[in-house]
Amino acid sequence: MEKSLQISSPVGLVAGGGVLPFAVADSLIARGIVPVVFALKGVCDPDSAARFRHHWISIGQFGRLCRLLHDEGCRQLAFIGTLVRPTLSEIRMDLGALRVLPRILSAFRGGDDHLLSGMGRLFEREGFQMVGIRDLAPDLLMPEGKLARIAPDADAEADIVKGRRLLAALSPFDIGQAAVVIDGHVVAVEDIEGTDALLARVARLRTEERIRARVGRGVLVKAPKETQDLRFDLPATGLRTVEGVAKAGLAGMATVAGQTIAADLQEMIAAADRAGLFIVGSPP
Amino acid sequence: MEKSLQISSPVGLVAGGGVLPFAVADSLIARGIVPVVFALKGVCDPDSAARFRHHWISIGQFGRLCRLLHDEGCRQLAFIGTLVRPTLSEIRMDLGALRVLPRILSAFRGGDDHLLSGMGRLFEREGFQMVGIRDLAPDLLMPEGKLARIAPDADAEADIVKGRRLLAALSPFDIGQAAVVIDGHVVAVEDIEGTDALLARVARLRTEERIRARVGRGVLVKAPKETQDLRFDLPATGLRTVEGVAKAGLAGMATVAGQTIAADLQEMIAAADRAGLFIVGSPP
Repeated sequence: MEKSLQISSPVGLVAGGGVLPFAVADSLIARGIVPVVFALKGVCDPDSAARFRHHWISIGQFGRLCRLLHDEGCRQLAFIGTLVRPTLSEIRMDLGALRVLPRILSAFRGGDDHLLSGMGRLFEREGFQMVGIRDLAPDLLMPEGKLARIAPDADAEADIVKGRRLLAALSPFDIGQAAVVIDGHVVAVEDIEGTDALLARVARLRTEERIRARVGRGVLVKAPKETQDLRFDLPATGLRTVEGVAKAGLAGMATVAGQTIAADLQEMIAAADRAGLFIVGSPP
Repeated sequence: MEKSLQISSPVGLVAGGGVLPFAVADSLIARGIVPVVFALKGVCDPDSAARFRHHWISIGQFGRLCRLLHDEGCRQLAFIGTLVRPTLSEIRMDLGALRVLPRILSAFRGGDDHLLSGMGRLFEREGFQMVGIRDLAPDLLMPEGKLARIAPDADAEADIVKGRRLLAALSPFDIGQAAVVIDGHVVAVEDIEGTDALLARVARLRTEERIRARVGRGVLVKAPKETQDLRFDLPATGLRTVEGVAKAGLAGMATVAGQTIAADLQEMIAAADRAGLFIVGSPP
């Protein structure tokens, strides 16, 4: 796992959906680093983008983005925020993209990790350095320890261990960054729908009495894939995760400290304390 | 993996839900072996049970079942059919069960596999031999080969290989006897809801455009866990599986020959041919 890098100002943020790109931008500004937002059309929120120095770009404008980064003096670049994987046929490529088309095609053959790291390598070949949230805004990551008032009991600790082992076994398959384990049983594994949908599924299985353990048992365990380039894709948690854990009737949640986004940690802890849940940042 | 055993007549079938116990009983009768059905109250279908020599039993009547098996002259016993895992507190134990309570408690600590093999060991300690569908009715299992008119293309073959690898990696965790792989991407893994729910989930993900591959791509891959005692729990497929694969917009399905129930194989093949799907029985 790479160490945290020195960030030089200004830094380029290719911003997808959600609030995270702007949380990162705010964190950078607080430390005197200027972010330049490259807002992806159709996914990045315009009002939030407007708060920062920004340009609008489309997926496929590889040439234009390289030029803009160069003009803005950005030597470092990060991909931040959500993006539904586009199909190749949806992408209108500019000349710069067509120049490197074989590499783009090869990046598209494989999982999302492969796509992101492949795109990252393309920018690195143009002389830019790819960085990640761990470099840009370590204050947005899950710290280590028992973060809420409640601590996991021995059964929950065992569920966490089992969940971590399961996710490690799933690592090579580019699926399943989260799982729910209740009293030693793996109940469900995250799929392409993500963690919120996983928790909703568990809540429904409880309603339907397919899960028969008492409320207040079991753990959401979340971890990055071992093979994952943490610059491109960190597991994310937030207030919604805590709410989902509560609705799923679990005892708490465990993620990997320093390798999980927890941008609204204080609200997460407050919500966990209200619901009597634990939040654990496990050592990597 | 154990070899197929000689079955002695009469043989005891502890019958849970579904049609499988009766398909097994019919298959036995066709080969001149008398089945005695021990129908589980509340789950086994009474009309079907009535077609065979049968007794009604409750879960927890371990002593009574041993006595009945003995009286009927059954030296071999199988658990066949579906059963929702009961909680310990729901089970009314008879004296015979209370005599072996510590072993029952230990069987309950762990996954479903552990529970079934633990219960099997209890009967073996009483002198009965546990057998499975592979011993009782090999004609109900998936044969090897390409069984429908359509054969998988190279991409589907690669998806099958990836799915088999994933399921092997999941083996130690007592979850995930099935997965959907589309164009090299693992899309979803079966959870305690089972294969029909997995396929319904994939169909919904397509409707919601979370899966963006064309219809007619991807494979349902199904395999037993490597650690699984195949006497107690074989993956099952049926007409409903083929219908689910069609609704999920996949190209076909692959299971492990000789290790998967396919009681209504001819109807499955007919449905697959109508829908243009492949059915593959892969070598173990």
